[in-house]
Amino acid sequence: MFYLIGLGLGDAKDITVKGLEIIRKCDKVLLEGYTSILTIGKDALEQFYGRPLVIADRELCESGIDDILEESKEKEIALLVVGDPLGATTHTDMLLRAKQLGVKSQIVHNASIMNAVSCCGLQLYNFGETVSIPYWTNTWKPDSFFEKILNNYSRNLHTLCLLDIKVKEPTEESLTKKVRQYMDPKFMSVKEASAQLVEIIENNPASGISKTCSAVGLCRVGASDQRIVVKSLEEMQHFDLGPPLHSLVIPAPELHPLEADYLSQFK
Amino acid sequence: MFYLIGLGLGDAKDITVKGLEIIRKCDKVLLEGYTSILTIGKDALEQFYGRPLVIADRELCESGIDDILEESKEKEIALLVVGDPLGATTHTDMLLRAKQLGVKSQIVHNASIMNAVSCCGLQLYNFGETVSIPYWTNTWKPDSFFEKILNNYSRNLHTLCLLDIKVKEPTEESLTKKVRQYMDPKFMSVKEASAQLVEIIENNPASGISKTCSAVGLCRVGASDQRIVVKSLEEMQHFDLGPPLHSLVIPAPELHPLEADYLSQFK
Repeated sequence: MFYLIGLGLGDAKDITVKGLEIIRKCDKVLLEGYTSILTIGKDALEQFYGRPLVIADRELCESGIDDILEESKEKEIALLVVGDPLGATTHTDMLLRAKQLGVKSQIVHNASIMNAVSCCGLQLYNFGETVSIPYWTNTWKPDSFFEKILNNYSRNLHTLCLLDIKVKEPTEESLTKKVRQYMDPKFMSVKEASAQLVEIIENNPASGISKTCSAVGLCRVGASDQRIVVKSLEEMQHFDLGPPLHSLVIPAPELHPLEADYLSQFK
Repeated sequence: MFYLIGLGLGDAKDITVKGLEIIRKCDKVLLEGYTSILTIGKDALEQFYGRPLVIADRELCESGIDDILEESKEKEIALLVVGDPLGATTHTDMLLRAKQLGVKSQIVHNASIMNAVSCCGLQLYNFGETVSIPYWTNTWKPDSFFEKILNNYSRNLHTLCLLDIKVKEPTEESLTKKVRQYMDPKFMSVKEASAQLVEIIENNPASGISKTCSAVGLCRVGASDQRIVVKSLEEMQHFDLGPPLHSLVIPAPELHPLEADYLSQFK
C-alpha cells in the first residue's frame, strides 16, 4: 500500500489523527522535501512521530518513484507532503503510476495554502485563478502570471500568488557535468515578489492595475508566528516579513464590507 | 480563548492532532451543524473525542455568538466546523466579533472541499472562481452562477460548484408565526445540480457550453466510500451518486494530458 499524507502547514501537530496512525504502522516513511517546507525540521517530525524519516528529493520522487511503488506492493510505504498531498502535479502523477503498476494507494488530505489563505479574511469563493511567481534572472523575466492577475482583478476577484521555491536545484554549471552540484535552497519573499510585480506594472502603465494597489503579505500561515500584513504593492517591495514560507494576495478592487473590515486589522 | 477548529472532510480521525488536543482541554465544545456535515454523526465524534458536544445551529452561530464569546473570556471554548473553519463567511464574522469584544481566538486549519477537490486529478491552479448552486423553487430560479462557469470555461479554467445545503431552515408558513417549524434537512445531489444546469443551457443555446460537456461528480470526498464519476452533464442529470455530500466540477474544455489521464479512470 502506498499512502500520500498531507502534513498541513504549521508544525508536527498539524497532521491528522488518521495520518499519524498510518505513519506509525508503515514500514517506511518518506518526507517529500522540495515542493514546500514546514516551519520545523525533520528531527522534530521524527521525534513526534517516533519514526525515522527518509528525505525524498525531486530525483527520488520523479525518476525513483517506480522503485518505491514496487516496494509498496509488499510493504506499507508513506510519502509525507507539506500542505495537501495533491497540491503539486508530481503527486497526481505518482498515483496514476501506482494504478498502472497495480499498487493500491490512499490519500490523506490536509489544509494547504489554497484554502488556509482565507485566514486573511478574504473569502475563498472570491478568488480567481491561482498564479505562481517564478524567480527572475538577469536574462529571464517571464511575466505571464501578470495577465492572470489582471484577468482576476478586472472580474473583481482576488489572486493568490504562490512564490517560487528552489530546493536542491542543480547549478547551471553542473548541468553538463557528471557530478551535480546544488544551489543553496531559497524561498521567494513577499518583498521580492512585490518588487517583480512593481517592475511589470511600471513597464505596463495602461494595464489597469497600479503599484499603489493593495497587497496582502502572508508569512508562515498556520504556524504560531504567522504574520499577515496589508500594504500597497509599492510599500510591500521594501517590507521584510521574516522567515519563509511567504505568499502574496492581490485583492479584488472592490471588497465585501466584511472582507474590508477583516483586512483592516493588518494595516 | 475561542477556538475555531476544522474537522476535515471524512470521519472523526480527520481532525488534526493539534485540534484534538484543544478539544480535550476545552471547557465547552460546540459542533457547527448547518454549513456542512461529516459522513458520521455527533455520537461517533463524542465517543472519539471523549467529550460531549453541543450542536450549534444557525441561530446560535449568528445571533447567539456574543454570549459564546463573552463566555470565552473566562473559559476555553471550541467551535468545530466541518472542512476548514474559514470556508464560510459566518466564521470570519465570528473572529472579527471576538476581536471587537477583546476575546483571544485561534484557528486550526484542515482540508476543505476547496483543496480536496484535487482528488479527481484536476489541478487546483487550473480552477477559476468557485460557484454555489442554490436549490430552485417553482418561482425562484436564479442562474447567476452560470455566467461565472462560462467565464471560467472561456478562459480554460475548471469550476468547482458547491451544492446547496438546507439544514434547520424554517418553513415558509412558519416564518410569520411565533413558533418556528423546520424543513427536513436536504443536500443537493450532483444529479439535481446537473438537471438545473442542463435547463439553463437549453434556455441559452448560444452560451458556448453544451449539455454534452464533461462533468465530474464527487461524493463524500475524503471518506472511505468516496466516489468520483465522469459523465456528460446530460447523462449526469440521471445518475445517482449516493448519499451526501456531493460536489460538481465543470472541467475546462482543454485538459492537461495528466489531468485527462487521471479523469479517464472515473469514466
